[in-house]
Amino acid sequence: MTIRVGILGATGYTAFELARILLRHNGAKITALTTRQDDRPHVSSVHPQLTGRLDLHLENLSLDELAERCDCIFGCLPHAASAAVVPGLLERGLKVVDLSADYRLRDVAVYEKWYGEKHPDPARLPNSVYGLPELFRDTIRGAELIANPGCYPTSATLALAPLLKNGMIQPTDILVDSKSGVSGAGRTPKLGTLYCEVNESFSAYGVGTHRHMPEIEQNLQQASGQKCSVIFTPHLVPMDRGILSTCYAKPTGPVTTAEAIAALREFYADEPFVQVIDGMPATKSVSGTNYCHLTARVVNDRIIVIAVIDNLIKGASGAAVQNFNLMYDLAETTALVD
Amino acid sequence: MTIRVGILGATGYTAFELARILLRHNGAKITALTTRQDDRPHVSSVHPQLTGRLDLHLENLSLDELAERCDCIFGCLPHAASAAVVPGLLERGLKVVDLSADYRLRDVAVYEKWYGEKHPDPARLPNSVYGLPELFRDTIRGAELIANPGCYPTSATLALAPLLKNGMIQPTDILVDSKSGVSGAGRTPKLGTLYCEVNESFSAYGVGTHRHMPEIEQNLQQASGQKCSVIFTPHLVPMDRGILSTCYAKPTGPVTTAEAIAALREFYADEPFVQVIDGMPATKSVSGTNYCHLTARVVNDRIIVIAVIDNLIKGASGAAVQNFNLMYDLAETTALVD
Amino acid sequence: MTIRVGILGATGYTAFELARILLRHNGAKITALTTRQDDRPHVSSVHPQLTGRLDLHLENLSLDELAERCDCIFGCLPHAASAAVVPGLLERGLKVVDLSADYRLRDVAVYEKWYGEKHPDPARLPNSVYGLPELFRDTIRGAELIANPGCYPTSATLALAPLLKNGMIQPTDILVDSKSGVSGAGRTPKLGTLYCEVNESFSAYGVGTHRHMPEIEQNLQQASGQKCSVIFTPHLVPMDRGILSTCYAKPTGPVTTAEAIAALREFYADEPFVQVIDGMPATKSVSGTNYCHLTARVVNDRIIVIAVIDNLIKGASGAAVQNFNLMYDLAETTALVD
Amino acid sequence: MTIRVGILGATGYTAFELARILLRHNGAKITALTTRQDDRPHVSSVHPQLTGRLDLHLENLSLDELAERCDCIFGCLPHAASAAVVPGLLERGLKVVDLSADYRLRDVAVYEKWYGEKHPDPARLPNSVYGLPELFRDTIRGAELIANPGCYPTSATLALAPLLKNGMIQPTDILVDSKSGVSGAGRTPKLGTLYCEVNESFSAYGVGTHRHMPEIEQNLQQASGQKCSVIFTPHLVPMDRGILSTCYAKPTGPVTTAEAIAALREFYADEPFVQVIDGMPATKSVSGTNYCHLTARVVNDRIIVIAVIDNLIKGASGAAVQNFNLMYDLAETTALVD
Repeated sequence: MTIRVGILGATGYTAFELARILLRHNGAKITALTTRQDDRPHVSSVHPQLTGRLDLHLENLSLDELAERCDCIFGCLPHAASAAVVPGLLERGLKVVDLSADYRLRDVAVYEKWYGEKHPDPARLPNSVYGLPELFRDTIRGAELIANPGCYPTSATLALAPLLKNGMIQPTDILVDSKSGVSGAGRTPKLGTLYCEVNESFSAYGVGTHRHMPEIEQNLQQASGQKCSVIFTPHLVPMDRGILSTCYAKPTGPVTTAEAIAALREFYADEPFVQVIDGMPATKSVSGTNYCHLTARVVNDRIIVIAVIDNLIKGASGAAVQNFNLMYDLAETTALVD
Repeated sequence: MTIRVGILGATGYTAFELARILLRHNGAKITALTTRQDDRPHVSSVHPQLTGRLDLHLENLSLDELAERCDCIFGCLPHAASAAVVPGLLERGLKVVDLSADYRLRDVAVYEKWYGEKHPDPARLPNSVYGLPELFRDTIRGAELIANPGCYPTSATLALAPLLKNGMIQPTDILVDSKSGVSGAGRTPKLGTLYCEVNESFSAYGVGTHRHMPEIEQNLQQASGQKCSVIFTPHLVPMDRGILSTCYAKPTGPVTTAEAIAALREFYADEPFVQVIDGMPATKSVSGTNYCHLTARVVNDRIIVIAVIDNLIKGASGAAVQNFNLMYDLAETTALVD
Repeated sequence: MTIRVGILGATGYTAFELARILLRHNGAKITALTTRQDDRPHVSSVHPQLTGRLDLHLENLSLDELAERCDCIFGCLPHAASAAVVPGLLERGLKVVDLSADYRLRDVAVYEKWYGEKHPDPARLPNSVYGLPELFRDTIRGAELIANPGCYPTSATLALAPLLKNGMIQPTDILVDSKSGVSGAGRTPKLGTLYCEVNESFSAYGVGTHRHMPEIEQNLQQASGQKCSVIFTPHLVPMDRGILSTCYAKPTGPVTTAEAIAALREFYADEPFVQVIDGMPATKSVSGTNYCHLTARVVNDRIIVIAVIDNLIKGASGAAVQNFNLMYDLAETTALVD
Repeated sequence: MTIRVGILGATGYTAFELARILLRHNGAKITALTTRQDDRPHVSSVHPQLTGRLDLHLENLSLDELAERCDCIFGCLPHAASAAVVPGLLERGLKVVDLSADYRLRDVAVYEKWYGEKHPDPARLPNSVYGLPELFRDTIRGAELIANPGCYPTSATLALAPLLKNGMIQPTDILVDSKSGVSGAGRTPKLGTLYCEVNESFSAYGVGTHRHMPEIEQNLQQASGQKCSVIFTPHLVPMDRGILSTCYAKPTGPVTTAEAIAALREFYADEPFVQVIDGMPATKSVSGTNYCHLTARVVNDRIIVIAVIDNLIKGASGAAVQNFNLMYDLAETTALVD
């Protein structure tokens, strides 16, 4: 059986990576790509990398047209725009992996505070399924709608959740100092992401105000059952892709570097995409892959956990396909072990 | 005496480099910066590098206001926009260094063919002064209006003119294969100059259609007194700044690499900003400076001359200040020997 | 049936790409990785990207050990070192894809002139099989030893051979101005490939002296049956990977851009990895893939053909697997349509 | 009066920047460049950027030769090598600005623990003068030997010292998460600083073990008179130059972002090279300059101070010339206001 999939909002970097991965998925076939434009550009003019590999046009399709052509939708729309169409997709019997932020936060008030808008579909939030398989695999299997995790929260949650769950670190006074490549800022032309603004520069942004801060807190709380508080500081790195999160936490008692690494290794022993390493993770080692590399160090009175992912793959499109595989009961690593 | 200078169109990369150079010029003082916006942004919000170094706002100034505040104008406006204001500046007794393309081509028909617009001030073209001091120093001294050269034409002209003038190469069948950093494309947000489009990519553009092609031909003809024909192929390099031009020409007779280098060295013996070298020029060696590095090789039946400049300095703002120094009879290297 | 493959000289970038591609090849299994070092490093310490994906050590293996473990060898040794071991491998019944330059040039004298060394296995040169499937597919099928093409020659040959074969361009006065990412220079620490030397810099090297010049000439002659002369100028681009070759040739008669593009399109109509496009090729569009993108323009009296490949994939390891697939009569695109 | 200066260890990036700055210093003249090599390379072959600008050879000079040619020495030698020659220079009446780490730490035991070697000149440590003018200007004036600060410590100390001195933050539980361009790693060829290893990658290194950790602690203690404890985590950014330090500290009482910024602004009101800004600092804004840009944010229970410098200028060679100016009672900004 081949599952027919559509990608909503197919002009960006995340959509390209989705298409690239799905093209080598033997259980899926891309049958629709959408855009708000009405000029039906061929995918090869939008993503020249796909020349000769995918013969589809981007179209401005209705919900009914999508329902006719697709079994499952990957949503790459902006927040708020996504939750405006997801209910209609679900009503038409489609499954949805939503890469926007719309279904990640379970508390409408938190969403509306951090995103500054009314949520178009608040009723679904309390029971939404957060698609981080390493922590919530069971709820993902068989779900109709998946909230695909944010890129920064994926790295920080994979770094910290195991040590919170096993009681090795305290749930408060957690600092997450993250660094991301530029593709995380999207493909819409803006002064701040021009080559000559970003290249040979490094800067922080959204200090204390970034929307991934409550998402990280929610994940850590859900994983550990404890109230968590996190300070999150994102930075922009002059490179295309990759996130490294340096996470600082207070141990609950005496602990060594070896013990911290062992705890991570134990937690992820059976995970196909998380590798706990002794050396220092580099974003390049996971670039273009669905892997996360992790390590830990104890320095003075802190455990420092360092995690790297590719923000477009494990932090977005790879995770989306991993969730898709789980939803349809396919082998979880299909199309993802590059 | 301090010359009061204004910069028109002060938001871009070229204007920033001009300001940076002029701040260390002991004979000039920046007294006006203009923009079409009406919100009077402080220069430090537009160019954070100038924080604490220049206390001026960008203003939407009239010609009369400019004439009151300034003695000399550096124009960083787009083509056509520039020639629309230059006549008014000259009438008010201001001197002008125009960094746009408007006064470079002496033949109105050529301008209108390649730029696709009516020229706003065609009468001045036949007598315009092209500001490449290494070839036309005498006409620059005392000029009221200087057409500041294009970045690619500067590199190609400095590479080829000496060998055309001394008869070592043929005036036809010249190929100029040029490579430029991204700052040459300006600071206006466009998909094509986003970091993630340009980084880790290399491409050609404007093959056979770039506006610097007739400018190079005009320069070589003016320098050599011969009809020249040039094929010009520009490419975009994933770096901020720098141009390297690889220029292929046919020798008029037998010649060795040593003879070609010696000819270049003789021609530029007294030039403060052109260095003929034996090794291979690299754009990084001239980055941030007003220097041009040049070398030559004879391969089979071709002389290959390779020239590097910083497109924003020797290819724009440094050359503009060099011209300014000549116009006002100041030491030519003032503020330029970094 | 699974073919057991070994990689000789497994520490470099080419070997990593080979391993990455072969890991997703359903007809091949990596059974040996070699190094001259005797400390048996685990592959994950040499190539951290392979952590958890390949559990092998790099070993200093004898020919007999290789013959016991492997059916086919990919050689990533330096030139001269490669031809010193290839005869022993072939004698033991192994097939070999040699990524070094040792078996590319058919004329021993040309090899010894350009490489400056005695060839260790000259008898095999005249009948060596050059592994560029788009031109020489028939001889590759069933071969025991393949000379895998150089990266620059692949791009230049794919660009020019079709127009030479159909008589559209002249065989002499061909200029190939090529630009390559830094990975082409290998992984051995050298001043010239340090980050701070290369980044934000662009330069030419090996002008008229690069060893790929005779290889390009040989290819064009073999493809067209005509004596060809080529000037080849390589440049270093501040990026990891990718080659763009701008190839200038003289048409044999009147020709338009459309006709040149049509000729390329006709030649490559059935090729799985060559895409002739109307727009401008960018190295990023083929990065990480086995594709070549090509286009042509007629400017004045020249046809300009522009080709891009990933130097590590279509220019090395992807081509090697494509050849491997042909040698073993597997589907040619196996493991290569990413 | 012109002070004759020599640069010891003149092959690296720091030495180049020193030469570049000193060439525009109207009170200094470079009279000696040293290297351990004996082949007397011309400076333009080591630093092509200086072609035609400085006509000197690098020489293997004795202390007596240096004393004959120079009044002041800038030492760019590795640690331990530096303190082996400094005493001899001082004995011969030369002044020294030492850019190595040898005279930064006042406690020999701390030096020997972190640098793993016997100190060659321990007697001078307790009274060494640490050349950070913003904190220790008075002791620098008239000193014979200056310990030029480390790059990371400069950024962290400028960020934190004002708030420690005015009692706004606690002296313990300070986290400094720093990010540096690659030039900080020096110019010796190593696998880890090859272009293809670093480009498109981001990683941490020396977590909890970097030698700048005790230097930061010493600075903060000396500035505030309190025992301080710092965790320092450096990271490598794929760019040539620039350091950004994100510094996390606990306030001693309630404080707002505006108050934290105001405190920094008050402290640096008269400093020529420190700019406190409201926006987010970017390394590019200070690239190539001797400036430091700083800002602060209060998030939850932390003050976050973010500082950027150019590691080669304010973090090394610019600071060295600033110290030189103070030692010789010249205008402090000479040659530094670019």
